[in-house]
Amino acid sequence: MPQYSVQDAKELICETLMRCKTSETNAGLVADALIAAELAGQAGHGMRRVPSYAAQALSGKVDGSAQAKVEKTAAATLRIDAANGFAYPALALAEDLLPAMAKECGIAIAAIHRSHHCGVAGVVVEKFAERGLVAMLFANTPAAMAPWGGDRAVFGTNPIAFAAPREGAVPIVVDVSLSKVARGKIMAAKQKGIALEEGWALDADGNPTVDPAKALNGTMVPLGDAKGTALALMVELLAAGITGANYAANATSFFDGEGAPPGVGQTILVIDPRKTGGAAVISHIEELASEIEAQSGARLPGARR
Amino acid sequence: MPQYSVQDAKELICETLMRCKTSETNAGLVADALIAAELAGQAGHGMRRVPSYAAQALSGKVDGSAQAKVEKTAAATLRIDAANGFAYPALALAEDLLPAMAKECGIAIAAIHRSHHCGVAGVVVEKFAERGLVAMLFANTPAAMAPWGGDRAVFGTNPIAFAAPREGAVPIVVDVSLSKVARGKIMAAKQKGIALEEGWALDADGNPTVDPAKALNGTMVPLGDAKGTALALMVELLAAGITGANYAANATSFFDGEGAPPGVGQTILVIDPRKTGGAAVISHIEELASEIEAQSGARLPGARR
Repeated sequence: MPQYSVQDAKELICETLMRCKTSETNAGLVADALIAAELAGQAGHGMRRVPSYAAQALSGKVDGSAQAKVEKTAAATLRIDAANGFAYPALALAEDLLPAMAKECGIAIAAIHRSHHCGVAGVVVEKFAERGLVAMLFANTPAAMAPWGGDRAVFGTNPIAFAAPREGAVPIVVDVSLSKVARGKIMAAKQKGIALEEGWALDADGNPTVDPAKALNGTMVPLGDAKGTALALMVELLAAGITGANYAANATSFFDGEGAPPGVGQTILVIDPRKTGGAAVISHIEELASEIEAQSGARLPGARR
Repeated sequence: MPQYSVQDAKELICETLMRCKTSETNAGLVADALIAAELAGQAGHGMRRVPSYAAQALSGKVDGSAQAKVEKTAAATLRIDAANGFAYPALALAEDLLPAMAKECGIAIAAIHRSHHCGVAGVVVEKFAERGLVAMLFANTPAAMAPWGGDRAVFGTNPIAFAAPREGAVPIVVDVSLSKVARGKIMAAKQKGIALEEGWALDADGNPTVDPAKALNGTMVPLGDAKGTALALMVELLAAGITGANYAANATSFFDGEGAPPGVGQTILVIDPRKTGGAAVISHIEELASEIEAQSGARLPGARR
């Protein structure tokens, strides 16, 4: 965002969404998330989502004025209904409520259903790590990958994110989606009229293809082949299976205003590491971080680039 | 085990270990785990471990008579000290105590330190799924993989395991270690005097190698390259960072009687899916399982083969 201040960008996003049947509160939460994505260097989850978000709010595919509802079903558990609105109000509830629950119980979980695109998964978990907690997020997304040996997509690219606090440094953040390459790379190759690299995608019959058009009608290859598919199944079950959300195969696109709400899910786990590892746990985490940073060429992953 | 009944195998393992300074209770738990690995088709974690386990108990690298100690540090959290014994007595404590805690709190965690080889990770989590719960296990293992761009191994091959219950069928079990291939394949190639496939391993300088001897002095390539390294970092922090266990780089071998105890860690998470997804959650999980089983060629992963 070279040409906008954060405040300008926020006003622009809020004004756009509020003209598209989105409440002021929800528009503010969406704007904060898209700007955080830009600041994390993840423009694909940033301001360029505004037109498609606006189209979805306008058509009613996303209920821009939805109020996420939270039920505390047990001492360490929240069940959150994102009510077919944007994901960010539901994520904000988890962010507000989980830290105290995790400090009391040692661990706490939020299971979100009837949800939507969660933005940069690493940004969500980093907020908990900034408060001294360890967090994980599992999200499912519209269908892109087939089970190993199968030909119909039943898993999304399904990110796993993890964050842990450091002493006097920004948190360690892992944010990995489970396709070998992002679907955006296939779309870009199609626009440029170039072939894909081998091993990225399969056609509708489950055969390898380097033709981007055939790949977009087919499925994405998971990272690590069969092992990646197994991890995608795990994430599908954590994000949608145990939350009651729509599975990838039933989830509509995050990009256009057509059809029913995507209704995907997210699960967030938050751990108080002092309860699992004792008082010295943060300096123990720092030992591994320092060892990695001491290797020339190696990089400790973080949300900020 | 074609030539032994389960009972014969158990007696053989128990008698061997009890001659090697292992208590009767601990020997029984080790025997049950090794036999479960055989029954799961994972002979590499099965009876062939007996000689190396015996050597470690005899030398005192593993304290065969250790009593694992458990502290409930919060309503949903156990901190377990495996006391430099075998891992199985510590895992048995988690198996006994976590289900009731998860049913009460919705989720519960056991963080195990001063531990050892946890056997087949999928077998551990499957036991919780057989009781209607969803479970995950993260374990670190002796150093085998370098951070991406680095040359010194700081992560183990670090398995992630996950299990979810089904209606009237054995649980879904995901069990994935994060190296591209198992280290055993490198050892087998060295014994046979054959070259490795490209892309499996790096030499001590971080360069690709197909020489098994150089690979054994070097590091393993993670599945999915940079993404796999990020997941290995996550598992290292979950299994050893937040538990206070030894990191991979400080963990001695699981295979010989030399040196200090490995002192690795395991973290187990158990979720009551009824608390996160409502009363119909098991049939919701079944929907995805059926969709995958309906695809010809696709296979739903389980612990039993």
